[in-house]
Amino acid sequence: MVSRSVYKAAGIVEDTRGIAHRVAQISVSAIKQMPVLASKVGGCVSLGQGIPSFSTPDFIKEAVIDALRHDDAIGKYSLQPGIPELKVAIAKRLQREKKIPYINPETELFVSCGAMEALAASISAIVERGDEVILTSPNYSSHIEQILFAEGVPVFAPLIEEKGWQLDLHAIEKAISSKTKAILLCSPANPTGTIFAEQDLRAVAQLAIKHDLFLIADEAYDFLVYDDIPYFSLASMPEIKDRVLSFYSFSKIYCMTGWRVGYMYAPTRIIDQVLKVHDAFAICAPTISQYAALAALRETNGKDGKGDESIRALVQALRARRELTCQRLDRLTTLFSYQKPKGAYYIFPKILRSGMSSMELALALLNEAKVITVPGEGFGPTGEGHIRFSFGGTEDVINEAFNRIEQWAGTL
Amino acid sequence: MVSRSVYKAAGIVEDTRGIAHRVAQISVSAIKQMPVLASKVGGCVSLGQGIPSFSTPDFIKEAVIDALRHDDAIGKYSLQPGIPELKVAIAKRLQREKKIPYINPETELFVSCGAMEALAASISAIVERGDEVILTSPNYSSHIEQILFAEGVPVFAPLIEEKGWQLDLHAIEKAISSKTKAILLCSPANPTGTIFAEQDLRAVAQLAIKHDLFLIADEAYDFLVYDDIPYFSLASMPEIKDRVLSFYSFSKIYCMTGWRVGYMYAPTRIIDQVLKVHDAFAICAPTISQYAALAALRETNGKDGKGDESIRALVQALRARRELTCQRLDRLTTLFSYQKPKGAYYIFPKILRSGMSSMELALALLNEAKVITVPGEGFGPTGEGHIRFSFGGTEDVINEAFNRIEQWAGTL
Repeated sequence: MVSRSVYKAAGIVEDTRGIAHRVAQISVSAIKQMPVLASKVGGCVSLGQGIPSFSTPDFIKEAVIDALRHDDAIGKYSLQPGIPELKVAIAKRLQREKKIPYINPETELFVSCGAMEALAASISAIVERGDEVILTSPNYSSHIEQILFAEGVPVFAPLIEEKGWQLDLHAIEKAISSKTKAILLCSPANPTGTIFAEQDLRAVAQLAIKHDLFLIADEAYDFLVYDDIPYFSLASMPEIKDRVLSFYSFSKIYCMTGWRVGYMYAPTRIIDQVLKVHDAFAICAPTISQYAALAALRETNGKDGKGDESIRALVQALRARRELTCQRLDRLTTLFSYQKPKGAYYIFPKILRSGMSSMELALALLNEAKVITVPGEGFGPTGEGHIRFSFGGTEDVINEAFNRIEQWAGTL
Repeated sequence: MVSRSVYKAAGIVEDTRGIAHRVAQISVSAIKQMPVLASKVGGCVSLGQGIPSFSTPDFIKEAVIDALRHDDAIGKYSLQPGIPELKVAIAKRLQREKKIPYINPETELFVSCGAMEALAASISAIVERGDEVILTSPNYSSHIEQILFAEGVPVFAPLIEEKGWQLDLHAIEKAISSKTKAILLCSPANPTGTIFAEQDLRAVAQLAIKHDLFLIADEAYDFLVYDDIPYFSLASMPEIKDRVLSFYSFSKIYCMTGWRVGYMYAPTRIIDQVLKVHDAFAICAPTISQYAALAALRETNGKDGKGDESIRALVQALRARRELTCQRLDRLTTLFSYQKPKGAYYIFPKILRSGMSSMELALALLNEAKVITVPGEGFGPTGEGHIRFSFGGTEDVINEAFNRIEQWAGTL
């Protein structure tokens, strides 16, 4: 289900002599490869990788500048699980946002090189070769890579597109086998922007209890919910505290994608094991980025801090970009139909042009319209027939991209 | 050969229910765990983890401050393999230092979250379950973790202690089997400070050709050589260009341990595969750290740049610290004998006190003398009976640590 088309499109012939199966079987992520292809095309605008246009807020950058001038420790390794003060601030944030009575900052969380590092390390720590992990389809392609890397088997439970890409509980239950080790859910979801309903998440939690499974909750977009939709986090359920591994990032909420800092909350015994992988791959998260993260959390209290203000402004701007994106898609009804996203900054329209694969469309848009997008095929078996647009870019970028797409569509 | 004593010492009982073998089998690194234990003891001085006392040079920090104020891209993802300009600068550095005629910066290298990430990713990419990797003993414990993580089998070829911990070619050849996939060498070596002799490295290269093996060269300390000893890099041998994977770091050379930025040089086809792992674990190296790395290389020309000056000052200071460390060890001849290191900032003395394991000694020094060290047992089968001291700390720290050790020794 993971194709090699991007490689082929890039004219790359893979030579996997002597390469371990766990890596040879993984396809190169289209999300990361499209910008590389685009750099060869030149003059492209991007609805591709999820890099919002916003800069890291000034109050964070100024705190880092101050530390660069006055605190030598900023250039040195931190303790391997992270700066203790940052871990305390993270515990507070999670307790407040997820309504968790108490989190031990010393043992129940650690700071990682972005949520991705903690996710990859955790999946490697709990998935034995041949173990199955249930994912939604579509699902963020990196999770698929991470499961394959651990020599696990991704088993897909399709989302219900016509219900706004909500969970299909029946499909999830049907996917459970004696080899199932975990269920992985990403909410708000990438690439669909779904906020999974609380009742469905509670039902999945019951399935996990019943079948003794881990739950892997990628909540990197947990702050980014539109229309006052209620957001529910698996981390807030005490009855699954011993089996839920939750992942968070500073990348999206504070416009810090390049800083590579995130964190994980899980039972102590799991953190202990995942730290072994963290040690082998990363030693510690970048110390300077941990300083930035601490500056961000210090100004965030859930009410009126500079961090809260920047988050509110971000959500407001992205809501407007979502509206714009939907309006522009409404003018392309012969090409696309879509489910309006409720969170994150992705939309995953269905391609209505029959006979055109998602990769063909993405490459045509790249080469002919000079618009970067991500083909749906990499997001699981039901991703084909769709394309992912990010609306993280400015309104100008979004308008320019859709102008080009409209013009290109006119030539068909 | 990897014991769980540090965990035991910390009173941690591992609960590995549901944990994958690749991780459950790994022991927690004593290098990283000792500071955690020490934080509970309080008032310790450190000869432990390799964190030099020096700050990241001001010219690097100022370049980063300037970019924080004027370049929004510093907060965003870079291209996954690294900032193109940085890759060009890295290629230039390698060409100059390793006398390599040409390196393609686009395809033959990538920028990682420290050398460790690239090493772990590469070992995961080439080591299939059950494959053997030949290491020296002693050897840096993280390499052992990385091989175990890939479900490979570390096979140790002892170094010759009485010859200053040089390679034993016979032992390496004897260690080769039909399952051998690679030979891993770290020169200047951690924990022994050995500079492996050119003729021996050339002989190992011939073995690799003869038996069709990869060579993994961890050269994170390649700038740190004392006494004008000639340093030879496997990366400079054209006849093994298709099989050598070389790893470098900004951590030591520019006192940037906390920035988590390094790089890897290898055949294009290997880079292509390792980037899949990099994508699943890291996405990209921290962009801000890549800016710092670029600032460092811009001021380094092998002659009279600010970077060259800071490297020279660093080597000079560390040479003095090595002398001091050896002088202090010369006053402890009933406790230790040692081989004088020729590079890096580690010394690996033999423990002369019979019946005392390296862990017992390290814990006694921690709890009774309040000095952090690293027990030798984690560095491979012949590491036991030794202890690692880092002389990265200031002369004051080194003197204070040895004062305490002397006082403690007086109580025996």
